[in-house]
Amino acid sequence: MATQPLHIKKLVNYGPEDYRLTSGPLPEPGVNELLVKIGACGICASDYHCYHGAPMFWGNDTFPRNVKTPVVAGHEFYGVVHAAGPNALEHFGVALGDRVIAEQIVPCDKCRFCRNGQYWMCEKHDIYGFQASDADGGMTEYMLFKPTSRVHKIPETLTQEECALIEPFSCSIHPVNRGDIQFNDVVVLAGAGTLGLGMIQAIRLKTPKKLIVIDTMPFRLELAKKLGADEVINPLEEDAIARVKSMTDGYGCDVYIEATGNPLAVNQGLQMIRKLGRFVEFSVFSRETTVDWSIIGDRKELDIRGAHLSPGTYETTIDLFSRKLLTADGIVTHRFSLDEWQQAFSTFGSPEAIKILLIPDQNAG
Amino acid sequence: MATQPLHIKKLVNYGPEDYRLTSGPLPEPGVNELLVKIGACGICASDYHCYHGAPMFWGNDTFPRNVKTPVVAGHEFYGVVHAAGPNALEHFGVALGDRVIAEQIVPCDKCRFCRNGQYWMCEKHDIYGFQASDADGGMTEYMLFKPTSRVHKIPETLTQEECALIEPFSCSIHPVNRGDIQFNDVVVLAGAGTLGLGMIQAIRLKTPKKLIVIDTMPFRLELAKKLGADEVINPLEEDAIARVKSMTDGYGCDVYIEATGNPLAVNQGLQMIRKLGRFVEFSVFSRETTVDWSIIGDRKELDIRGAHLSPGTYETTIDLFSRKLLTADGIVTHRFSLDEWQQAFSTFGSPEAIKILLIPDQNAG
Amino acid sequence: MATQPLHIKKLVNYGPEDYRLTSGPLPEPGVNELLVKIGACGICASDYHCYHGAPMFWGNDTFPRNVKTPVVAGHEFYGVVHAAGPNALEHFGVALGDRVIAEQIVPCDKCRFCRNGQYWMCEKHDIYGFQASDADGGMTEYMLFKPTSRVHKIPETLTQEECALIEPFSCSIHPVNRGDIQFNDVVVLAGAGTLGLGMIQAIRLKTPKKLIVIDTMPFRLELAKKLGADEVINPLEEDAIARVKSMTDGYGCDVYIEATGNPLAVNQGLQMIRKLGRFVEFSVFSRETTVDWSIIGDRKELDIRGAHLSPGTYETTIDLFSRKLLTADGIVTHRFSLDEWQQAFSTFGSPEAIKILLIPDQNAG
Amino acid sequence: MATQPLHIKKLVNYGPEDYRLTSGPLPEPGVNELLVKIGACGICASDYHCYHGAPMFWGNDTFPRNVKTPVVAGHEFYGVVHAAGPNALEHFGVALGDRVIAEQIVPCDKCRFCRNGQYWMCEKHDIYGFQASDADGGMTEYMLFKPTSRVHKIPETLTQEECALIEPFSCSIHPVNRGDIQFNDVVVLAGAGTLGLGMIQAIRLKTPKKLIVIDTMPFRLELAKKLGADEVINPLEEDAIARVKSMTDGYGCDVYIEATGNPLAVNQGLQMIRKLGRFVEFSVFSRETTVDWSIIGDRKELDIRGAHLSPGTYETTIDLFSRKLLTADGIVTHRFSLDEWQQAFSTFGSPEAIKILLIPDQNAG
Repeated sequence: MATQPLHIKKLVNYGPEDYRLTSGPLPEPGVNELLVKIGACGICASDYHCYHGAPMFWGNDTFPRNVKTPVVAGHEFYGVVHAAGPNALEHFGVALGDRVIAEQIVPCDKCRFCRNGQYWMCEKHDIYGFQASDADGGMTEYMLFKPTSRVHKIPETLTQEECALIEPFSCSIHPVNRGDIQFNDVVVLAGAGTLGLGMIQAIRLKTPKKLIVIDTMPFRLELAKKLGADEVINPLEEDAIARVKSMTDGYGCDVYIEATGNPLAVNQGLQMIRKLGRFVEFSVFSRETTVDWSIIGDRKELDIRGAHLSPGTYETTIDLFSRKLLTADGIVTHRFSLDEWQQAFSTFGSPEAIKILLIPDQNAG
Repeated sequence: MATQPLHIKKLVNYGPEDYRLTSGPLPEPGVNELLVKIGACGICASDYHCYHGAPMFWGNDTFPRNVKTPVVAGHEFYGVVHAAGPNALEHFGVALGDRVIAEQIVPCDKCRFCRNGQYWMCEKHDIYGFQASDADGGMTEYMLFKPTSRVHKIPETLTQEECALIEPFSCSIHPVNRGDIQFNDVVVLAGAGTLGLGMIQAIRLKTPKKLIVIDTMPFRLELAKKLGADEVINPLEEDAIARVKSMTDGYGCDVYIEATGNPLAVNQGLQMIRKLGRFVEFSVFSRETTVDWSIIGDRKELDIRGAHLSPGTYETTIDLFSRKLLTADGIVTHRFSLDEWQQAFSTFGSPEAIKILLIPDQNAG
Repeated sequence: MATQPLHIKKLVNYGPEDYRLTSGPLPEPGVNELLVKIGACGICASDYHCYHGAPMFWGNDTFPRNVKTPVVAGHEFYGVVHAAGPNALEHFGVALGDRVIAEQIVPCDKCRFCRNGQYWMCEKHDIYGFQASDADGGMTEYMLFKPTSRVHKIPETLTQEECALIEPFSCSIHPVNRGDIQFNDVVVLAGAGTLGLGMIQAIRLKTPKKLIVIDTMPFRLELAKKLGADEVINPLEEDAIARVKSMTDGYGCDVYIEATGNPLAVNQGLQMIRKLGRFVEFSVFSRETTVDWSIIGDRKELDIRGAHLSPGTYETTIDLFSRKLLTADGIVTHRFSLDEWQQAFSTFGSPEAIKILLIPDQNAG
Repeated sequence: MATQPLHIKKLVNYGPEDYRLTSGPLPEPGVNELLVKIGACGICASDYHCYHGAPMFWGNDTFPRNVKTPVVAGHEFYGVVHAAGPNALEHFGVALGDRVIAEQIVPCDKCRFCRNGQYWMCEKHDIYGFQASDADGGMTEYMLFKPTSRVHKIPETLTQEECALIEPFSCSIHPVNRGDIQFNDVVVLAGAGTLGLGMIQAIRLKTPKKLIVIDTMPFRLELAKKLGADEVINPLEEDAIARVKSMTDGYGCDVYIEATGNPLAVNQGLQMIRKLGRFVEFSVFSRETTVDWSIIGDRKELDIRGAHLSPGTYETTIDLFSRKLLTADGIVTHRFSLDEWQQAFSTFGSPEAIKILLIPDQNAG
């Protein structure tokens, strides 16, 4: 392949606030491995927090460190099959030139969870972009899809934006599935960031009685409305609990999906949910939540259902995008080249940013 | 009825630390009401905490007051049908002289939950012994079973102790049902008080792979072993989390039932439970719990299942007692007359006390 | 009430093929009863089969007779509250003049199922239009709603056609709920009669991957497509099993909903469903089904889920109609007055008929 | 290994009624394969029916042929690790000399079901003893465990009889798990053959309210009683449906497990089960079942749950045997050497036979 670059650019995590754009040889795919030319790679909140040294990555009293450096960052990637190691095309059922995406987790295929089909909770739990050598990520020009990856083909009809949103929206759909939304349900979603905006769309596709979205940022609430929220509430401006109670004859909502990462939203949810309701906990929190656990059992007999990653939902997201039942409109707010990675990361925290993409090759699809 | 007393003794709650043993006329059963001569009435932790002014009864910023005074205390009662109002015998399917028990809740039969068969989460939620006139309780010689009560007959073969334990053990069985215990499960129960001791027995009847009981009081752990715990752990003496992990190849337990009311046991459970595990929350807490909610969703994708009261389990408890599959041995540690109620309540907090009964008529069964 | 008629018309079932349009005094509502002026009453397949003497109504070796005559026929009614017995307005939470509908079942509120909230499987099981005096039906000018009825208010925005379809579409939604439809599911619906046409709409609102509808009548398949089927199959014209297998990589469909009443459709479903699939059985059959039950267990480990009536779904149907998420377009094909009832019943069997309404007062809404 | 035989005996299926005891070279274990010296191999009803040419193995209009000959028969085996191919000991986590068992299915690890953890419904579905070269079975002196096998270690404390019953009892436990047995359930089991006798024991370990066993052979009913049935019914001697109805206040049983393979038992179950009950279908039938499917949906809204093989239950069976919570007493009625295989197969049909074992080496454990 004459056009194959000898060296590629990659954004490597060497430690907190020590990420470097380096250059290295093109990786060589081994048995059952694919070499993929990256189309785009989004910046996730976890990338941002890892960069800034969050203990959930670098360890503290509660959690062990789970980042292995130096590692190429990025797990919200997609790309095109550029080369394949021995048996890899048959192994993954793909062809050279196919547009593909690998799920963010690289399952070990050996632990108890993997053996039971619960690969997304793999005990080893390598995630592309966080564990060096086992799972180098997608903030680069070319990356390897590892042999135990879960790989999906992407139809040509999807736009670059849509492709880049497959990973985050797949993470949006899983908590919606966990909520087991019924026709008669009043659903409250707290948090209208990228993933919340995906959840809004997925919730609408289940046709609950009413969808109420809570966020503190007005432009996000605007977007929430456009994407299908029946009602939006800004808790800085009104009493969200009272409002939800008043819309439900005083009972409270049937389903509450917590997607803010803010402990206040946990307390809010436990207050506004009805007895025997379903509370889906999706967030990563940067601090602990203090609440009376009597509410969970004695007061309301709740079902609190955690949600992590995206089991079975990459297929869903790709299908819904291809049927135009999900939209990327308004979600991708910024695009940068790899060289501009620092600007991209610093833009992340700005209020008007939703999804930011790194695009290694501005001319490629 | 010549032997019918003109006046009866009753222990009336007038307010925090203001309970009085008073005397009053025998209640007259109305339409669909039964007058029941009390056999015994246990003292529940909730009785004790209500007496001492706990905010969950008397109200605070989070919860409204839910006690209506003056009210005859007590919800762990049983007795004998002494008289019946119009239609009541047919209504409840009982006869004069039958040994009977009413569930602790008096459903409104009108709210959304009652209409759906979820009577134990009734929105009005009157509990015998806490809401004056609607639900006077069983710390008395005779009480009324109200028209919407759920009433069960008790076979003659059950002992007085067993009858007195029907209410608490019914509350033990519901969280066990919520745990959905499978043959391959390693189950951890935290808390071996009266209800925990009932849970141990119920868990054994589901035959998990292993039952581990955690408590800080050695004599309770002894009793736990006698009643069927495979392993017991005193977290004051050893690292409970490490021990459970070591018994489960490092994965953690499959099911954790929290029955201590101590926030430390919530944290402990979230640490020692495996990913995708089932955490049953049963307790009433006297203070808030501070914990990282990322564990629930992002880290472990747990199912946290609240449990309240005893739906469908009075029938179970009566059946299991009558088949000798539950035992009361060692659970009832003290008996007092109504006149000795103050001594009974002060005994409640002592370390060697488990279940304390008030027995209005020492000669009756 | 000056306009109140002294006598009303009613279509009374005296026995198989012995229905008579008679006249009688206006019923008097008792305690907790409503007198409702009928807006319309649809003819259900069960009305038609009952008229023609089907054993499931009149009894055979397997089933006891369950029709009590003479009884006013009809259970697909709605109307306006015309008068109310003592306490009835408060009891049902309605006002004179409200548009209302009662669910087709009149629960006993006493049996084990009613006590558990499973009122639609009431052991006594009185259905309006089939059990004389306990449940006279809606093919009349005015009918009584009985005290244990489940009554729902209908918003003024619903058309007459929509109101008349609340009962059948509520029966459509329950089997869809039983199918527990997921985003990744390929769903096959067999049978596109009135209820199947409601199911198509409800299934679309759950957004499966694909909805395939099978029927033998081309005009129904046309309507199925208009209402949201992705694919339609006429098994008289092509090999339906092969077609479904070919659309699912040879695995078969994930969910199969049987709504034909034809044993061939059971066999077809068991052949075309994938292993571990969900097969919803909704129909009433006029003859037995012969099939190898090894498929259910040993070959495919299926979940076969029966569906009966409409628990919790009247609320859903009314809500979806009022949000324009269900349509009545093309479903109601014929309208008759009560006097024309014979013509209405004989039209029932004609191939171009879908839903036929009896309308007592052509001037009322 | 000096004691290693150069040639081994094996019972090979060449076609219906054409099984031959032949001799061949000791198999050589490849990568990730184990060579296992067989301790015993039971004869399953499926072995017997395959030998006699049953269409479910050899094909008919409904089912394709699924036996690949010539194949060594037998899937109810266990043994000792005799030799291991490259990486196999690490791959399976076993050592030379360990007592081991492989599940009867050899999953492909590639199909949709295997990828989802539903390996027991593998689309390819190779079973030891039925598919030549991919899955030669255990009626031999030494066999190969294939790389994708699910292998379990067996503790030394289990007897030979217990080891030989791990496979059938694992198949007993799965339908019991599917029945989701609750404390308040009245459970009816139809069929007390080897697997039914395992189910009785497993059902008791879930502590239902009552277990009723139905069979037509008195000595099996005797054994059923010894193993824990509360009541037994011989439908040749009394009206089983009436008896069950009378024991359940006329409602019918909560759970019915069909394990007879006789269509009469399907009809019986549909008649005696209560509305909303759980009907577990486990059997392989030799002829079709004719029944009114209206019972499943319209009349009773049942859950019919198929059960196939033994997902997750080998671990359970081994654990329960090692804790003496399952017994083999009275189940194994006959033992034969490989040379006596014809006598063994002809004994299979005799009324006093329950489980028959082939034991290659009478001196080994």
